[in-house]
Amino acid sequence: MGDATSFTGAPGTELAHHLSCETQARLPNPMKSIWKLSLGRPECINMGNGDPHHTLYPVSEISFKVPAVTNNDPVQAWRNGTGETQVLHAYKDEPSVISLRSALRYGAGAGLLEVRQALEKVNRLLHSTTSNTHTITLSLGNADAVTKCYRLLGNPGDSFLVEEFSFPGMTNAPLAQNIKWVPVKLDEKGIIPEEMERILTDWNEAAQGRRPHVLYTIPCGQNPTGSTLSLDRRQRIYELARKWDIIIIEDDPYFFLQYDIGALDTEAVQRDGFAASFARKLAPSFLSMDVDGRVLRIDSLSKILAPGMRLGWITCNPFFAEKLEMLTDSSTQHPHGLGQVFVAEMLAETGWGMDGFIRWVKSLCDEYQRRRDFFIDTFRREIGDCGFASAEVPEAGMFIWVRVHLECHTRYQSGDDDNTIVLMQELFQNLFEAGLVLMPATTFAIVGSGAKSTPHIHTRCHFFRATFCGTEETMEAGIGIFGKTIKKFFAS
Amino acid sequence: MGDATSFTGAPGTELAHHLSCETQARLPNPMKSIWKLSLGRPECINMGNGDPHHTLYPVSEISFKVPAVTNNDPVQAWRNGTGETQVLHAYKDEPSVISLRSALRYGAGAGLLEVRQALEKVNRLLHSTTSNTHTITLSLGNADAVTKCYRLLGNPGDSFLVEEFSFPGMTNAPLAQNIKWVPVKLDEKGIIPEEMERILTDWNEAAQGRRPHVLYTIPCGQNPTGSTLSLDRRQRIYELARKWDIIIIEDDPYFFLQYDIGALDTEAVQRDGFAASFARKLAPSFLSMDVDGRVLRIDSLSKILAPGMRLGWITCNPFFAEKLEMLTDSSTQHPHGLGQVFVAEMLAETGWGMDGFIRWVKSLCDEYQRRRDFFIDTFRREIGDCGFASAEVPEAGMFIWVRVHLECHTRYQSGDDDNTIVLMQELFQNLFEAGLVLMPATTFAIVGSGAKSTPHIHTRCHFFRATFCGTEETMEAGIGIFGKTIKKFFAS
Repeated sequence: MGDATSFTGAPGTELAHHLSCETQARLPNPMKSIWKLSLGRPECINMGNGDPHHTLYPVSEISFKVPAVTNNDPVQAWRNGTGETQVLHAYKDEPSVISLRSALRYGAGAGLLEVRQALEKVNRLLHSTTSNTHTITLSLGNADAVTKCYRLLGNPGDSFLVEEFSFPGMTNAPLAQNIKWVPVKLDEKGIIPEEMERILTDWNEAAQGRRPHVLYTIPCGQNPTGSTLSLDRRQRIYELARKWDIIIIEDDPYFFLQYDIGALDTEAVQRDGFAASFARKLAPSFLSMDVDGRVLRIDSLSKILAPGMRLGWITCNPFFAEKLEMLTDSSTQHPHGLGQVFVAEMLAETGWGMDGFIRWVKSLCDEYQRRRDFFIDTFRREIGDCGFASAEVPEAGMFIWVRVHLECHTRYQSGDDDNTIVLMQELFQNLFEAGLVLMPATTFAIVGSGAKSTPHIHTRCHFFRATFCGTEETMEAGIGIFGKTIKKFFAS
Repeated sequence: MGDATSFTGAPGTELAHHLSCETQARLPNPMKSIWKLSLGRPECINMGNGDPHHTLYPVSEISFKVPAVTNNDPVQAWRNGTGETQVLHAYKDEPSVISLRSALRYGAGAGLLEVRQALEKVNRLLHSTTSNTHTITLSLGNADAVTKCYRLLGNPGDSFLVEEFSFPGMTNAPLAQNIKWVPVKLDEKGIIPEEMERILTDWNEAAQGRRPHVLYTIPCGQNPTGSTLSLDRRQRIYELARKWDIIIIEDDPYFFLQYDIGALDTEAVQRDGFAASFARKLAPSFLSMDVDGRVLRIDSLSKILAPGMRLGWITCNPFFAEKLEMLTDSSTQHPHGLGQVFVAEMLAETGWGMDGFIRWVKSLCDEYQRRRDFFIDTFRREIGDCGFASAEVPEAGMFIWVRVHLECHTRYQSGDDDNTIVLMQELFQNLFEAGLVLMPATTFAIVGSGAKSTPHIHTRCHFFRATFCGTEETMEAGIGIFGKTIKKFFAS
């Protein structure tokens, strides 16, 4: 880990200056030290802790009926109701991966060891991490994880870098802590490294305060633009992070949904297994490049299992991980046992196993890719010739960033009288009245304290975020409305 | 709600000055306003949101095997493995209380309506609340709820009131936000109202900063002292809160575990049902007295179901509830669907129903009361005559506050040379070496910026927290070690 010549102490400690004052002031729960003391003498009688006795938990068995993932396209069979099913079981005392007795008691903030170990295998496969350099802490999904990272690193007055369009659920959160956003321009390949470097080079600490020491980014299928960072850009951004000593919060809920990777090579699957063969096709994460321990990677099960699962994981250097666990102990405590049981039983060999899990993921990619293609085909058919709108084909995720060619509108004004916002608001209203909701770009625009030379973001708000998660019927009807309405709008 | 003559606007808004700067600065997620817009036109096609499609959730059924609660002492039968069981089911699409389709999608931060409605019934029964004056927001257990309340109300530099011994997991948390604790003396009946009033009256804002505007208290079976506030004290404390404009955070995880309430009157049970008859036996909560909306009550399922459930609820005025929901949207998001399904199915008439739930709770009280009595009997037998230690009989909860009569020790020094801490540390070490862990009072002592006239808390640390949650074998062995060790210690 890290630069061998400069490295001293436990991995991550050399990054201590990135921690917020709150993190530095946070005390551990003093009961933990007594608990740890008693761990050293397992024969000791503990009458200090007040945990309800496990014989009094009123649940003796939990079962989850899930699809069997024995064939290579389980999602299709599942949707059609034709596939075989499998039942994941957990019992109070009988042996299974995790007994309910363990899952339903108070546990470590980072999560149950069995769950972390299973996810460590996923990480090793997908990001080549080792448990020496990077540690897993469970989260309650990415909102929990991202906002904990803000608290970990951000002091009032700090400025964080972010894509200039981003997900407001997450970008509004730290504003209440008085953290400011510095938007970085992006295109269909994600953040433009030169823009990021320009901001950092031009930064004037006297006028603008502390130079940004954190980048928050969604590298795959970015929300809302659908862009995916190219390998080359990732490498350049990581080098910039090293040069300017920046921590990268890699929020990657769409990582598992990467498209156009094609069928897996049968020989490779037979030789290395399904999971390993799939892993090689994916875009390398920032985590996989992280020699310094400056990446906090955030993974989610919301998009590949279900959002209500509220379970994910943060991977980072062990020093940061310890601080995150202290924050968890001082806020949410450990994640719910029900979800941890599900994940452990699902990833175990008695459940889906790693290959089965990735088979589900790959099949899901195929399904969403078909939906994406259906969206694009329908869009081209309905809009194609008119030239009033266009859509980039995303390589990952769930979103299509639909560009409205306002420059073709007779009432469009650029420059000082730019009326992008007014026209887009009018179009949003027309669409709504015609029965379609799309998310306007203004919802995602980061109005930050960026470099003065960048034209105001409102002039670049001629986009809608659309999703292709829905059914073909929804897309067909929705894009139909869009086509009719936009033609009428441009004729006005 | 509130004082009818002074009340204006929505319930709670007149308490807005209690909100922290962070809460006041927090923005809602702007996507919510568009989502709400589209709710007004349900026929609208929504291609704005990026939720995974429900047909792609890989779970079609969840089952929980639980005890049937048809007789009046289900806990005994459950522990012996002789009772009947019942299975709570939830299905993806088939009708049940909550379909998995609803439970596993993104939801409102406050939790699913069905779950909140079921818990509102619990509240109405136990605290006579109405949905006009008090609103329910789900939490991830009390640690999540309490720390969210700190963020809701606390600014850096604020001072909060608390019992002078309290649970360090929760009292350490806000120190990192630079919130200071002001410890209030308590005895076996909980906080002493005169002590609270003295602190508030003597408060010097010029020297000590803003007068405390928050009281954090555990009113039943307090952790660690086991004390339960008498009705009279509760009423006086609530009046003090009104007089000094204080918000009460009522953290009440042991509320359901109240003892010595006796068997329920058969006639009353037949007339009003089991739940209503039980409810009348319980100590009235601060919430039940809350005419002003100044109580944030925090309930937990951890002690009556299982800690790993990580699900509870906050009840407060609608204005605070809205701010809490915004904090949840900006941090953890809504609680996990798996636990919400469990609670909804359990409380439904097809599950345990309200009466069954309370039958479980009452049976659990009986079980813990037997354990408590076993502890006290064993303690008296082992320690009784020697006079070196004594134990109060708690009316609720899981803890016994064991007093060590250091004044009988030959090496004890009081006054300026007080050596309570040194002797107690020595005794802790002796117990540990003999094979017993008890929690020393120092772990719970709040060293605050209280009134100068109060002697330093270290002189009052001659206590251990012990629990009676364990088995009879554990208690028998543990108290045996305690008896032998303390006799040796006092002979030294």
